Amino acid sequence: MPVSLGELAISIGCELIGDPDVLVSDVATLDRATPQSLTFLANSAYTKQLPLTKAAAVVLRVEDVDACPVAAFVTDNPYATYALMAALVCPEAAFEPGVHDTAIVELSASVASSAYIAANVVIGERTTIGENTFIGPGTIIGPDCRVGDNCRLVANVNLVKRVKIGDRGLFHPGVVIGSDGFGNVMAAEGWVKVPQLGGVSIGNDVEIGSNTTVDCGTIGDTVIKNGARIDNLCMIAHNVHVGEHTAIASATTIAGSTKIGDRCLFGGRSGAVGHLSICDDVILLSRAVLTKNVTTPGTYSGSFPAELSGKWAKKVARFRRLGNLIERVKKLE
Amino acid sequence: MPVSLGELAISIGCELIGDPDVLVSDVATLDRATPQSLTFLANSAYTKQLPLTKAAAVVLRVEDVDACPVAAFVTDNPYATYALMAALVCPEAAFEPGVHDTAIVELSASVASSAYIAANVVIGERTTIGENTFIGPGTIIGPDCRVGDNCRLVANVNLVKRVKIGDRGLFHPGVVIGSDGFGNVMAAEGWVKVPQLGGVSIGNDVEIGSNTTVDCGTIGDTVIKNGARIDNLCMIAHNVHVGEHTAIASATTIAGSTKIGDRCLFGGRSGAVGHLSICDDVILLSRAVLTKNVTTPGTYSGSFPAELSGKWAKKVARFRRLGNLIERVKKLE
Amino acid sequence: MPVSLGELAISIGCELIGDPDVLVSDVATLDRATPQSLTFLANSAYTKQLPLTKAAAVVLRVEDVDACPVAAFVTDNPYATYALMAALVCPEAAFEPGVHDTAIVELSASVASSAYIAANVVIGERTTIGENTFIGPGTIIGPDCRVGDNCRLVANVNLVKRVKIGDRGLFHPGVVIGSDGFGNVMAAEGWVKVPQLGGVSIGNDVEIGSNTTVDCGTIGDTVIKNGARIDNLCMIAHNVHVGEHTAIASATTIAGSTKIGDRCLFGGRSGAVGHLSICDDVILLSRAVLTKNVTTPGTYSGSFPAELSGKWAKKVARFRRLGNLIERVKKLE
Repeated sequence: MPVSLGELAISIGCELIGDPDVLVSDVATLDRATPQSLTFLANSAYTKQLPLTKAAAVVLRVEDVDACPVAAFVTDNPYATYALMAALVCPEAAFEPGVHDTAIVELSASVASSAYIAANVVIGERTTIGENTFIGPGTIIGPDCRVGDNCRLVANVNLVKRVKIGDRGLFHPGVVIGSDGFGNVMAAEGWVKVPQLGGVSIGNDVEIGSNTTVDCGTIGDTVIKNGARIDNLCMIAHNVHVGEHTAIASATTIAGSTKIGDRCLFGGRSGAVGHLSICDDVILLSRAVLTKNVTTPGTYSGSFPAELSGKWAKKVARFRRLGNLIERVKKLE
Repeated sequence: MPVSLGELAISIGCELIGDPDVLVSDVATLDRATPQSLTFLANSAYTKQLPLTKAAAVVLRVEDVDACPVAAFVTDNPYATYALMAALVCPEAAFEPGVHDTAIVELSASVASSAYIAANVVIGERTTIGENTFIGPGTIIGPDCRVGDNCRLVANVNLVKRVKIGDRGLFHPGVVIGSDGFGNVMAAEGWVKVPQLGGVSIGNDVEIGSNTTVDCGTIGDTVIKNGARIDNLCMIAHNVHVGEHTAIASATTIAGSTKIGDRCLFGGRSGAVGHLSICDDVILLSRAVLTKNVTTPGTYSGSFPAELSGKWAKKVARFRRLGNLIERVKKLE
Repeated sequence: MPVSLGELAISIGCELIGDPDVLVSDVATLDRATPQSLTFLANSAYTKQLPLTKAAAVVLRVEDVDACPVAAFVTDNPYATYALMAALVCPEAAFEPGVHDTAIVELSASVASSAYIAANVVIGERTTIGENTFIGPGTIIGPDCRVGDNCRLVANVNLVKRVKIGDRGLFHPGVVIGSDGFGNVMAAEGWVKVPQLGGVSIGNDVEIGSNTTVDCGTIGDTVIKNGARIDNLCMIAHNVHVGEHTAIASATTIAGSTKIGDRCLFGGRSGAVGHLSICDDVILLSRAVLTKNVTTPGTYSGSFPAELSGKWAKKVARFRRLGNLIERVKKLE
């Protein structure tokens, strides 16, 4: 469904230089854009492509306006403005409300009349589904859950039990929320399972990526606050708290009972051991793992980059013989 | 369903100091407990909360009895005793035996009369399901599998083929057991797949966490022994053996054909490369990866903690110039 | 279904020394083989088992023929030849074409007449399924996907949207392909989601392991080329390219927009940060992570092996005090 530039400018509240009646119907990179495309210039590495673009319009900063051969949306944050416009140009497919014939909804559950429940969905006892929410095929929602308004559970999502989700949540396939935490205590006869009796409390505007797992709390709730973003294949253990607008990239693992503050950024494959308290505004670089409380905002790291194996092996050998070097220095002293 | 303190004392075999007729109906932490709650004191960090607790009863060690303002269960291992009691106070919901209308069970499969097969379950040829076993919604079990008695496959579990599971197993959503191992051999025309023709053999009292994968053996079986506990998002490769009561925390990866002994503890994100033999009673700390056989029980580690990036970068730079330092010391000598 | 040695020799094109009429019906290791078994000798560690084998036939190199007490298939690459023969001796179960009663196929989708669509499968609008392709139970395929001929989606696979797959693909349970990439941009009001509007393009002869995720491109496609092999629990982020015959072992993470060349080998839990270009024929050892472009084929590494914790702690302490040692050497100089 084509959208006019004028409509985009008004919807997002952004200055337009150019003909407001021009229509766009897709998005593209600067170099691949056609006269039907919206594109953007956010990274100066691509500035040289701007004069050649064939786009209908480019979202860009004021300093790039002069070099722009087509219509321009002028903004301080072109990538954010582009993102908001792209969601209008290429919206999610609309859905008709209703419950698919093959969906199984317990009698004590409640589904808003504007929600859609897809094929092969199972919804457990006392669970409620909010307005305009899309529950994709194969999703299994256990008892005592609440999914708010305007959520999208894409497909094959698992909400195991006692999972409360706010509004506008987006959950990708294979996500498991509310499964038992890893609670075991050794006794004479072997491991005794500690019953995992809490739930999961998720705020508004939370997105969780494919095959990520979020365990329920042992007694209280595991908590993910408003605006948090979690990528694929992450592990959020029991009783973890993830703060507002904190973003956690792929394959990151947060061990049990750790509390992460607001606006933190955790790089891919990073993590934290259990029972930590991590303050707001912590940036943790890829593959680093926090092992102590963090009380000072800032950037943290702790990993080594790969290099040619021969060189790396020498470095590791020197590292392993450091004690010997220290002895030699001591002798010299 | 409230349980009396006397009933708990008798069921678990634990000394009770206090009124056996008091009822408990939930569990809580010391500071949040109500007069209906069972709670526990296992970690001395919480001792100061004991005199203020409003619980019905506290599971604790004999040395804490005097400070307890309410009924007390006295035990050497309060967390284990609490865990056993909590399972009685807050049991899993009971289920009616039967096969849901939407479940698809092959004619050659066999389901015990006391088992429950939930919605949208698929059970393959020659597979058997034992007494009192719960097969949760969306679970797919392939041919030639056996699930023992009193197992719980929570939901959306995948047993691909030739998977044998003992009694009292607990398997969380997204678990995949019996999928093909990663067996490829390079030939002139590219990778040739090595058929993965073995199965998976799992003992009694095994728990496997959400989205963990356990591959089938290439020729023989991948083996997980009695009482093993495996957390979320772990990878157990083809022909691995996991010993009795070994516990493996989240996102740990065990490469092909490695044999792990009994009572080992693998921390989160730890692992082992392939074809290793690891003896009993090995503790591997978080993020460390074993690369050689281990014949001595003990604690192993191999990771660095994250720190402020500026400090870390200096350390890495010094590490990279160690060769230069060694030269300088040589010169001084 | 037993196969004769002669038939195997002709099918694979391999020299047979022995009676072509002998039948084999299973495969086994050298030491466990029975007179019905095919086995192989590829690794000299097992040479001593050869004279004792009870197999029907052994696939081996010419230098091992004399020590072989039974029929021998002679080849330069015994493991590859064995793999090809094993697929004939123990083929995947054949399936009857058709669409299961419980499968839901959108009217605008198209399924080849020789394909099989299993129970509880959902196939979205405009999606096409090729000849002899097997779509296993619980698989959910969204709109605008294409699955080629002779593919096998074992069970519970998720193709979210705009996923194109070539011929002879093999996809294991829990795989998610085409889910949104992790695209977020910070604005005044918090994270703004960047719509993920691309697809995934997968070549022929690709295998992807259980619970691996492959995100769709942000604008263009994420690309996996012919013959690539990806193990379990890997993360292939948006706009990544994986080259031909590149193999990626378990729990490896490739961050957004990184391009990996042909015939690369990535060890378990290895990875690459985003926006890299990695040339052909790179071997990356287990747990190493590339952080810069690679233009030289070769072997790369960057991890430390686990060792006894006491020893490791000393090494880490020395590493942390390297600055002090450098000062002392400076003083001596």
